[in-house]
Amino acid sequence: MATVAVIGAGAVGSYYGARLAQAGHDVRFLLRRDYDAVAERGLHIESHHGDFALERPAIARDAAAIGPVDWVLCGLKTTALDHAAALIRPCLTPETRVLAIMNGLGVEESLAGSLGTEHVFGGLAFTCINRGEPGVIHHIEYGQVGIAHLGDDPAELDRALALWQDATVEITRQPSLLRARWEKLCWNVPFNGLTVAAGGVDTEVIVTDAALRAEARALMEEVVAAGNADLAAAGNSERIDGEAVISRMFELTDVMGPYRPSTLIDYLEGRAIEVDAIFAEPARRARDLSVSAPRMEMLTALLARLDPARGAGG
Amino acid sequence: MATVAVIGAGAVGSYYGARLAQAGHDVRFLLRRDYDAVAERGLHIESHHGDFALERPAIARDAAAIGPVDWVLCGLKTTALDHAAALIRPCLTPETRVLAIMNGLGVEESLAGSLGTEHVFGGLAFTCINRGEPGVIHHIEYGQVGIAHLGDDPAELDRALALWQDATVEITRQPSLLRARWEKLCWNVPFNGLTVAAGGVDTEVIVTDAALRAEARALMEEVVAAGNADLAAAGNSERIDGEAVISRMFELTDVMGPYRPSTLIDYLEGRAIEVDAIFAEPARRARDLSVSAPRMEMLTALLARLDPARGAGG
Repeated sequence: MATVAVIGAGAVGSYYGARLAQAGHDVRFLLRRDYDAVAERGLHIESHHGDFALERPAIARDAAAIGPVDWVLCGLKTTALDHAAALIRPCLTPETRVLAIMNGLGVEESLAGSLGTEHVFGGLAFTCINRGEPGVIHHIEYGQVGIAHLGDDPAELDRALALWQDATVEITRQPSLLRARWEKLCWNVPFNGLTVAAGGVDTEVIVTDAALRAEARALMEEVVAAGNADLAAAGNSERIDGEAVISRMFELTDVMGPYRPSTLIDYLEGRAIEVDAIFAEPARRARDLSVSAPRMEMLTALLARLDPARGAGG
Repeated sequence: MATVAVIGAGAVGSYYGARLAQAGHDVRFLLRRDYDAVAERGLHIESHHGDFALERPAIARDAAAIGPVDWVLCGLKTTALDHAAALIRPCLTPETRVLAIMNGLGVEESLAGSLGTEHVFGGLAFTCINRGEPGVIHHIEYGQVGIAHLGDDPAELDRALALWQDATVEITRQPSLLRARWEKLCWNVPFNGLTVAAGGVDTEVIVTDAALRAEARALMEEVVAAGNADLAAAGNSERIDGEAVISRMFELTDVMGPYRPSTLIDYLEGRAIEVDAIFAEPARRARDLSVSAPRMEMLTALLARLDPARGAGG
């Protein structure tokens, strides 16, 4: 049994934290807006794999009350990345590992600045999860998590996989964090981006509107090209199999129904959207690597302007 | 003195029709929503060149009441292009000329289908004009009109220029309609498009936001490349001087202030936006000519979805 702090207990953090608790780990959730609801009624997961609840989860309003743990599961939005180190610090020992189940590029590198490369992992969740009422999480579809280590160290990866051994979560071992991050972006760039830029529509609109579907595919092709150039520049021998990944992304999304990606929900609810990590940083790397990515550039420019937090210093 | 019917008396049609009336022509306005206001109070032009009014302009609710004229000044939105021929028909004699002061590509060719090539002209208005109260037009900035003939016939162009000889409008002679249309698109594609796609912002936001300004320039470069390919394919020896045109567009727009292009106003007021003529048709020609225009493609796909009239059969 491990001690686990969930820092950033939004929909994704709460869900995966609850799965670890269900598997017997000592999981402690850092909560803000849902604290009272969870304290009163517990944490309820309505999952397509079967509902379950943590009736009396360990919860705290600040990380100091959680204290040192073996693992930090970080589910913060990347828009809060600047505050992540401070939030996580009270939970750290020299042996604490951090698994960032977050979107975008550069997240683990940023966390490593304060934690050290060897203790940072990326979790790539391909899942449809939204918040419901306070204290209720809707797990709608999928759920698998790719796990990678920032240093791509197999022994460290073994350690991370051991944590999830008894959890009801499909885990895949990702030998290359950089490749896994870019593959994940093949979904997030088109679907998190176009659903907002097209005026606030769900993923079903994107895959059924011929012109937007073509744009989604073209964006994926830019992401693949940039990702493979980034891997090459990093001296990493892994490559993204573009056609295979793109086909899979459409197969998975075609049966997803009218799903609202997290960025769309943030946009519709007037919160900061993750422009930098999901869009601007990949576009920046493409530019630095002389990979043509005109659609990513335009999408990034539009989203930066559409961001409800624009000008709020975020 | 010529008889002139203004069909499509929105801001642009009303303004230029009023200028022709001011110059002594017999101008008759086809009006719908502003009919009562103009019948009661006349047509008022508040212009940066000096205000003026037509106290009792000739107005009609349908074109049959206007009857045959020498010139039709067509200021319809391209979204009404399918109805243009029927609206214009009652005003035609075998000698009637039609000047389309409209945006986008393919407008004159469409009108020629029912009128014949030799009688159709394009008017390319570079001007900031918006409607005010019913019967009031705000002419904010600029105002010049390039005039071209669909067959690029110099003798026909002389005839069109003669109409405007005494009008307080700066007219430029455009020897090539196709070149003039593409040059105009260098402004309309980025500014009519991005102001909508960026969430409903004015031109000042586009030119002062570094990322959006870069997108505007990149869109102009695509328009220039597509335009020059289209000219070449048409056997037309004219070419767009890209750098000169792009510099001029930014110079003019940098001092324009917070202007709202017609497409933005249509969008904000929930009316159909001119997706096909301004965006989709240029993108289609680029594709047919194998000119890379990824930004025009994405912008077109987004605008088609953002169009308030989407799905309304338009």
